[in-house]
Formats: sequence, structure tokens, C-alpha cells
Amino acid sequence: MRALFLLAGAVMVIGAGPPKRVTPTEIVAAAPPAAWRAIPADDLLVMDLKAGGRVVVQLAPAFAPVHVGNIRNLATAGYWEGATIYRVQDNYVTQWGNNESEKPWPKGVVAKPPAEYSRGLRGLTIKPLGSPDPYAPAAGFANGWPVAYSPSAGWATLAHCYGTVGVGRGMNPDTGTGGELYAVIGQATRHMDRNLAIVGRVIEGIERLSALPRGTETLGFYKEPSSGVLFRSIRLASQMPAPDRPAFEVMDTNSVSFARYLRVRANRFDDFYRHPAGGVDLCNVQVPVRRKG
Amino acid sequence: MRALFLLAGAVMVIGAGPPKRVTPTEIVAAAPPAAWRAIPADDLLVMDLKAGGRVVVQLAPAFAPVHVGNIRNLATAGYWEGATIYRVQDNYVTQWGNNESEKPWPKGVVAKPPAEYSRGLRGLTIKPLGSPDPYAPAAGFANGWPVAYSPSAGWATLAHCYGTVGVGRGMNPDTGTGGELYAVIGQATRHMDRNLAIVGRVIEGIERLSALPRGTETLGFYKEPSSGVLFRSIRLASQMPAPDRPAFEVMDTNSVSFARYLRVRANRFDDFYRHPAGGVDLCNVQVPVRRKG
Repeated sequence: MRALFLLAGAVMVIGAGPPKRVTPTEIVAAAPPAAWRAIPADDLLVMDLKAGGRVVVQLAPAFAPVHVGNIRNLATAGYWEGATIYRVQDNYVTQWGNNESEKPWPKGVVAKPPAEYSRGLRGLTIKPLGSPDPYAPAAGFANGWPVAYSPSAGWATLAHCYGTVGVGRGMNPDTGTGGELYAVIGQATRHMDRNLAIVGRVIEGIERLSALPRGTETLGFYKEPSSGVLFRSIRLASQMPAPDRPAFEVMDTNSVSFARYLRVRANRFDDFYRHPAGGVDLCNVQVPVRRKG
Repeated sequence: MRALFLLAGAVMVIGAGPPKRVTPTEIVAAAPPAAWRAIPADDLLVMDLKAGGRVVVQLAPAFAPVHVGNIRNLATAGYWEGATIYRVQDNYVTQWGNNESEKPWPKGVVAKPPAEYSRGLRGLTIKPLGSPDPYAPAAGFANGWPVAYSPSAGWATLAHCYGTVGVGRGMNPDTGTGGELYAVIGQATRHMDRNLAIVGRVIEGIERLSALPRGTETLGFYKEPSSGVLFRSIRLASQMPAPDRPAFEVMDTNSVSFARYLRVRANRFDDFYRHPAGGVDLCNVQVPVRRKG
């Protein structure tokens, strides 16, 4: 058993049997209440499909305040009535909204938001990933989110990982208004970092976006826009009657539990895994989120 | 326009309009015939679904010769008659085979293959990725495949990327025989590298594995095994009548075309992308494969 103890960052539990490395799932299950943060109802975009099923997006106002402000305005104004999923590109993105409708922007929406592709480091407490990142000088976790950052240049950006939600746009320098949104449904599209505005991530129901039939047209658009997947409603949790609101907690990425979780993610070693990598990709460390209560 | 020329590795084409960086797609389309290698019919596993549709896997005998030998034996012996897809776990894997059947191994199958989780560097000509890898000392491309490797320790392993096909197994030190296979359908599961035997990759029809309904049981198993997705046949292209065989070519990863493709993948800059990352993840550089002829 000695070799076990020699592994960097080994986390052991002593039970009835021989010592065994804990799994990431076990660490999350054992995290104390203090390791969790409630997500405000204003940060939850609840998207119900007409055919049944719900997708919940956590918004990231600390990273894209104008775009997130737009999304809140669009939701409360009922802008997405009749919205559909109209693009599903394999190993890339699922995209939804009103597509090419000419619906006017509701009151309060900023039609041409600034390029919220990155932000300054001030106000962020970053837990470093501890592994190299192919796309940026550094990577880690800030305020519950996966980020790429440059300590020297002083910027941080949310990273395009599986489930990340961003704002569709035309050609540069257009940043998109927020009416058309996409979610990553395959390998992390990190080359999009700092080229598109990230506004959140799917925290429930991603399979309702990732398991859809792929579109047959260029870029995965559905051939018949009318055959898109219809939404019943897209609204903020804060618009819903209090007893109906879904509620979630996200793990504090500066907690001891998260540090342990990250260490084990980078050093999988248990009954199944015998060759710990000693490193991990930013997007292979999903920040734990759970239903509240 | 000067800033364009200052970008590392800039590839420019001068047309009627202003200079414009080429896209990866344009480089692949312009690659000369000498940049392509035919894939032998013995290296193609052709999997036809009962409900229609085809998935083609390119086998990797240079990396897992015993497991690939098993798969060829299983195919020619008709072992997979009645096989199903019985597990689809979101952002993880789709798995297929005969599941818990007690079908005996056909003649020639090695029931307990060696741990073909990595191999020596001799015989491989590696094109380095040129970006850091979180999971291994180095990453690159060898003989048309994405690999992680250690120049000092002298090993190389195929990497678990989107579409990678590996061999299902029980607990260590079991390596699996090859009857049960999985394909990665989400973020690269690189922590599996050197823990499971990789035998190939899906080169056509991955969406027939990735867009399936997710299983509702633990690890994405379907609740009713009988509700699995049935195959019509799983066979080698070399078992098919010559005129019916699908044929493919893979880009030579030591070609000039691939070097250009890799450089642009790491430095996306065109009408849409304005912030080149200057780096790229191993699994975000899909080695180009095309139908032959």
C-alpha cells in the first residue's frame, strides 16, 4: 500500500477494508453546508420546453453585466415567447432564441452592448487550477466559475466549457444583444474565449440540449426553422411564484472541500483508476452544483 | 492591417479584397493528394444500426494490437449479432456490445489481453502540439492520431478525445477483451488515458452515438436493457463486397498541410475570431478525415 501514500495530494479514508482513495463524488457528498453558496433567483434563467422538460441556466452578472441585464429584461418582457432551438451542431453548440424574427427590443435592453469578453482581476478570488492551460497564461476558479486569466495583463474571462452559455452574434465587432443564446455540447470550445460574451452555464437539464437531433444544414441549423424545438416559457426564477421556484447551491471554489475535489479530479486513483494523471483540464473540473434543500 | 502580420504563425491569403487569415476548413480543402493516407479496409469497423444509419470506427492496431486483433476476430466471427447500445451517459460515453450475455469468445480471441494503455516511442514520428498539456509531459500527433507522451520516460498513449473508442472493462487489472466498446461523447475524458485501452475513433456517424437519449440509471445505463439501440451488423470493411466498402483517407500529421492546419487551429483569426488564443487543446485539433474519392 505504500505507493498510495507517495502520490501527490493523496486523500485517504480508512474504513473497514484497506485504505482507499476517495472519489470526487464522495468529496462533494461530504462537503459541509458552509462550503455551499445559494444562487440568487435573479441569476436563474428557467427554460421550459413545450414538450416537457426543463433547462436551468445560472447567469454570471459579475462577468457580463450588460448582457446579463439584457437577458433579465428580455425574460421579464416575455421576449422569448415562441422561441425555439433552431441550431444543433454536433460536438459544438446548441443555439436558441427568436432566430431571424424582427421582434423589437423591449424597454431597457442595450442593443449594442460593450465587448464583455473579459474583465479585470479586482474583486475576484482565484483558486488556481494547478495544471497548465493551453489557451491562457493561467486557469482557475473565481467566485464559483471556471476562468482563464493573465496575472500580468490583469484580465480574466469565463471559459467555454461543456454547458457554458454564450451570446450568439454576427461578425466582429458585434457582440450580440442576448436574444440568441448558445450552449456548448461537446469538447470545450475554448478558442471562443474572449471572442464571444459568456453569460452563464447550464446547471440542470443540459441533456435536453445535447441529445437533440443534429441539424443537417451548415453549422447545424435545422433545415426547416419551423421544425425547431419549441419553448413553453423562458423566465427568471424570480418571476415565478416563490413556492414554484427551483433553487440551487454552488460549491464555494475557495472552500477546503473544493480544494480537495480539485486535487482528486487531477489525481484519479481508486478501484478503477490506477494511473493518476497528476493534472487536469479546466473544463474537466465541473464546479459542483446541487438542488437546494 | 499591420497588426495582422505581427501575429505568430500568421497564414495569409491575398485575394480580391483585403488580406484575410484562412480558416482550418480552407486549409483542409486545399491540401494536396500527397497530404492524405488511405485507411486500410481492415482498420475500418462498420457498424450499421437496425433503424438505419452507419457509424464507422477507424481502428488503431499500432497502439493496441492485441485488443484490435480481438475486435477483428469478434467482427469476422459475427460475435456482435444482436448487439445493442445499452449505455449513454451525458458528457461522457456511449457504450455498446452484448452487455451481460454469456456468449463464448470466438476462436482466436485473447480473453485477457495485456495492458495496452501505452506503447514505446520507437516507430512513431510525433508532430508536437506546441501547446502545454494538462495531463502529460507532452502532446502531439503520431501517425495520424492524437497522443500524449513522455519524451523522458519513453511512452506514448492515444488520448481520450471526442469520438475516441475504447474497451469497456471491470475493475483493475482487467483490461477488457474488446466485446464491449465505448465512444467519448463530451468533454475529453483524458483522466482515462493509460487507464483504459483505446482501440480507435469514430470517423463517421458520431452523431448517431452522441444524440441518443441519455440512460436514466447510474452511469447512464438504459433502464430496460431491451430498450437499447439495436445494431443490424458490426463488421470490418474488409468483410464487405469490395464495391460496397466505405473508404476513407486521413491527413498525414507530418505533412505541411497538417502543420498549417494546427497553426491556424491555435490562432483562430478571421472575420469572426479577433482574439487568437496562441494555443490549443490536443482534443480541439481533430485530425482531418475524409471520404475517399
